[in-house]
Amino acid sequence: PLIAVLPGDGIGPEVTREARRVLEALALGLDFAEAPVGGAAYLVTGRPLPQETLDLAKKADAVLFGAIGDPRFEALERRLRPEAALLGLRRELQLFANIRPATLFPALADASPLKPERVAGLDLVIVRELVGDVYFGEKGRRHDAEGLRQGFDIMSYNEAEVERIARVGFEMAKRRRKKLCSVDKANVLETSQLWRDVVNELATEYPEVQLTHMYVDNAAMQLVRAPAAFDVIVTGNLFGDILSDQASMCAGSIGMLPSASLRAWSGDNGMYEPIHGSAPDIAGTGKANPCAAILSAAMLLRHSLGNEDAAQTVEAAVAAALAAGARTADLGGSLSTTEMGDAVLRELA
Amino acid sequence: PLIAVLPGDGIGPEVTREARRVLEALALGLDFAEAPVGGAAYLVTGRPLPQETLDLAKKADAVLFGAIGDPRFEALERRLRPEAALLGLRRELQLFANIRPATLFPALADASPLKPERVAGLDLVIVRELVGDVYFGEKGRRHDAEGLRQGFDIMSYNEAEVERIARVGFEMAKRRRKKLCSVDKANVLETSQLWRDVVNELATEYPEVQLTHMYVDNAAMQLVRAPAAFDVIVTGNLFGDILSDQASMCAGSIGMLPSASLRAWSGDNGMYEPIHGSAPDIAGTGKANPCAAILSAAMLLRHSLGNEDAAQTVEAAVAAALAAGARTADLGGSLSTTEMGDAVLRELA
Ligand SMILES: CC(C)[C@H](C(=O)O)[C@@H](O)C(=O)O
Ligand SMILES: CC(C)[C@H](C(=O)O)[C@@H](O)C(=O)O
Repeated sequence: PLIAVLPGDGIGPEVTREARRVLEALALGLDFAEAPVGGAAYLVTGRPLPQETLDLAKKADAVLFGAIGDPRFEALERRLRPEAALLGLRRELQLFANIRPATLFPALADASPLKPERVAGLDLVIVRELVGDVYFGEKGRRHDAEGLRQGFDIMSYNEAEVERIARVGFEMAKRRRKKLCSVDKANVLETSQLWRDVVNELATEYPEVQLTHMYVDNAAMQLVRAPAAFDVIVTGNLFGDILSDQASMCAGSIGMLPSASLRAWSGDNGMYEPIHGSAPDIAGTGKANPCAAILSAAMLLRHSLGNEDAAQTVEAAVAAALAAGARTADLGGSLSTTEMGDAVLRELA
Repeated sequence: PLIAVLPGDGIGPEVTREARRVLEALALGLDFAEAPVGGAAYLVTGRPLPQETLDLAKKADAVLFGAIGDPRFEALERRLRPEAALLGLRRELQLFANIRPATLFPALADASPLKPERVAGLDLVIVRELVGDVYFGEKGRRHDAEGLRQGFDIMSYNEAEVERIARVGFEMAKRRRKKLCSVDKANVLETSQLWRDVVNELATEYPEVQLTHMYVDNAAMQLVRAPAAFDVIVTGNLFGDILSDQASMCAGSIGMLPSASLRAWSGDNGMYEPIHGSAPDIAGTGKANPCAAILSAAMLLRHSLGNEDAAQTVEAAVAAALAAGARTADLGGSLSTTEMGDAVLRELA
């Protein structure tokens, strides 16, 4: 199988290197091909998502993605900014299902800002819709009736878009603790009301799953109050963006959390990336935690290559390295990115 | 001065009663007039915001609001639901500035789900825009080009709307620790990009205030990681809804947090309400914490009546009652709503 490696900006290349080393160490006969993306691609080609990079991503069996974002390019027009590459890949590959697990490694129970008793047993998955919502609706700048500058973005979902992501949520819950919480703002938004209607309709196909609905403001509160009470959360693109970053913090450090972006439940041709960003402030210092990238590689093995054994081997190696005391700076330790990668590789051997 | 009292649904009447008792005990010669709102008003008049209630709110010097929301009315068309009353009042009274302080009462340091060292010194204010954004844009249901059901909501701000709320943020920061954090999603939304541009333009008038910008996903994370690092946060209606509920949890219990909704910096004719909802599950059980309502009355004294002394007297009485061990169920105690009110009144005497 061919793995497209898109390291991107900031700490992206540093953490992706460790993830690739882990995949190589498994000796599964994988082929790797690297291509630039984000600000790094803009610098050399004038575009954040060059056609060659997109072609490679489409052709590959899976994409290992680092991170994008570079403050130097914030003033460019939107289609030239690093973010356009990430949004473009999601859209072009139709990666509508973003899976973001937030689990607490026992060795990190103390790293969470939340009290240990609040995060004990934390094991939730956020299923975030990734190619619709206010992210991809018509948007722009104009002058309104009074001649004032105005910015606008259209939020919307149709029933097919809601159904396919809700199905992923139900299927996921069915294989886990059978609790699905759908998050919306149906007391204010029509988009959310449709979302809620469609989720309720689909629920009849999943009698074994216990479905609840929660307003997004309440969900943000409950993720602080009692995060361990959640099993699977399914929500739209915007709310999922906010809640998954928040949930990651409950798990200790955003440096620990992987994600998968899939275009089908089976996961063919998925994209795998840490949920953290490019962290320009620590780029190049060797301080970044590679665990999120390594755990993203584990998700790649699971979802795109169907190799559950190898996925669990990698996850166990990360857990063992942590249990043995390996810690990067974000976890209160002093290992460099490479040393943390070494620690995981040692456990793998 | 005339205070309109709108108790509303669920625990609204129970907590509002205690807030009114506290205001009466101050013997400031206030007049009170009560009117139904939300589901309670719908039951008797067929409308969640009867004209008489709106007229009273407009005529009064300030509005003391309880809570709205009742699951029995969730299936009604949107304009008949309890929420329509709250949104209608905000819009009709042009209460564009929602002020939501999140402070940790020292006696409650242990009640927060966050570790004590993370919330030590927590003292932040969220300034949320309240009459624009995706809340009040055109919205609806339709069939799209493929004949599928679709829900849509238009998000937008114009420069005048952003400027007036940003000004409240800057003025507030100027009187506090001089740090303003503007929260948006400018890497994806045009509405946010305009927001950011206008905030930056206004910043030139406030050289003494240190302005930063943060994406909303990062803000949700930082509010878990290091909430005490924030001073004033200014943001739009939707992001403010989510972040203020989240921040309230850091402060221990949503049962402690008041809010003010103002149509001018000076606060004439403002509306004051707990940020918690109607809590149908505990309505009528006498378990509700009246502190948020009582502290909302303190904000009323401060902002609408210009009586800072009385405001501080009420806040000190709440702090003293807590320090003396008074606790409702949400704080791990067993006092009833009235008993908690009594405890505050005792300290006031
Ligand atoms: C970089 C940004 C466009 C992106 C998003 O908002 O989706 C990021 O925050 C994420 O969650 O992957
Ligand atoms: C009840 C609801 C419409 C309201 C809102 O979303 O503004 C509430 O959550 C609030 O924050 O006051």
